[in-house]
Amino acid sequence: MSDAAVSPAVPEDEAALATPFVKCLVRLIRAQDCHGSWEGKRDAELLGDFIITKEQRRAIPIIGDPDPDVLWRLDKFYAAVGLAIEERCGLMASPMMEMSHEGFGRVLFTAGRLVVLSKTLRDVHRFGFETFWKLAAAGTKLVGDAIAAIDAYPEVARA
Amino acid sequence: MSDAAVSPAVPEDEAALATPFVKCLVRLIRAQDCHGSWEGKRDAELLGDFIITKEQRRAIPIIGDPDPDVLWRLDKFYAAVGLAIEERCGLMASPMMEMSHEGFGRVLFTAGRLVVLSKTLRDVHRFGFETFWKLAAAGTKLVGDAIAAIDAYPEVARA
Repeated sequence: MSDAAVSPAVPEDEAALATPFVKCLVRLIRAQDCHGSWEGKRDAELLGDFIITKEQRRAIPIIGDPDPDVLWRLDKFYAAVGLAIEERCGLMASPMMEMSHEGFGRVLFTAGRLVVLSKTLRDVHRFGFETFWKLAAAGTKLVGDAIAAIDAYPEVARA
Repeated sequence: MSDAAVSPAVPEDEAALATPFVKCLVRLIRAQDCHGSWEGKRDAELLGDFIITKEQRRAIPIIGDPDPDVLWRLDKFYAAVGLAIEERCGLMASPMMEMSHEGFGRVLFTAGRLVVLSKTLRDVHRFGFETFWKLAAAGTKLVGDAIAAIDAYPEVARA
């Protein structure tokens, strides 16, 4: 966890943490805290491991197998995308993920008969974002793309 | 492999083996035969392990983990569904499968932005069909359902 991640001093970080997408992500992570051990932690601390600085990224081998922790974060990230889609349009978008052990794969969200989102996954072992803002922007963009697809084919999404 | 499977004497079996779906399935299985060791085998022999008689089914525990052979057959079955869909309408339907190690899961076929087929998988460790005709009927029905969905939303399937 980088220092910048633990203490978000910049207003941009505060704004990122206030986006609906990041709030969904935090909610999902806190839901895993069965024993209340994260209650004293701030959101920025909980999300710290999602942040990988340029230096940290350079230190990760180009090819590598994703470890369980990074897979957990990837899972939470896409679950938050699904939750944020539901929050915005009331339709449940269920995710489906397919991945090789090397971290290549695909994630698909469907609502009714509509593929609301389809994304290729690669370099999953290096999954992370440079800043909170980039994390928020990436999630928010996926949610926006899904909403646009639902708006384009509303009857298919409800079929 | 049951005796009935190896020697299809009944006309119903011959008809089943002549269906477009079963032909796709046989084609996919023969494509795996890199060394030509199955060249002398008839189609009914190649498909023998897809057949599980009532007695055989009863002998399989109700709960069990699917073994690699049954997963291979499941994979070929759904790949054949995809191939037969493509043969009938010219659109590639890409399958995506998600399964727990206990053999519960879901298979999804998409074409463009359309979910052409979505099926819950369960009891995968007992995957099989009582007769060739039931195998052919099951595959053909899935293909038909997918084609009906594509006909209902042609522009989404091409989106």
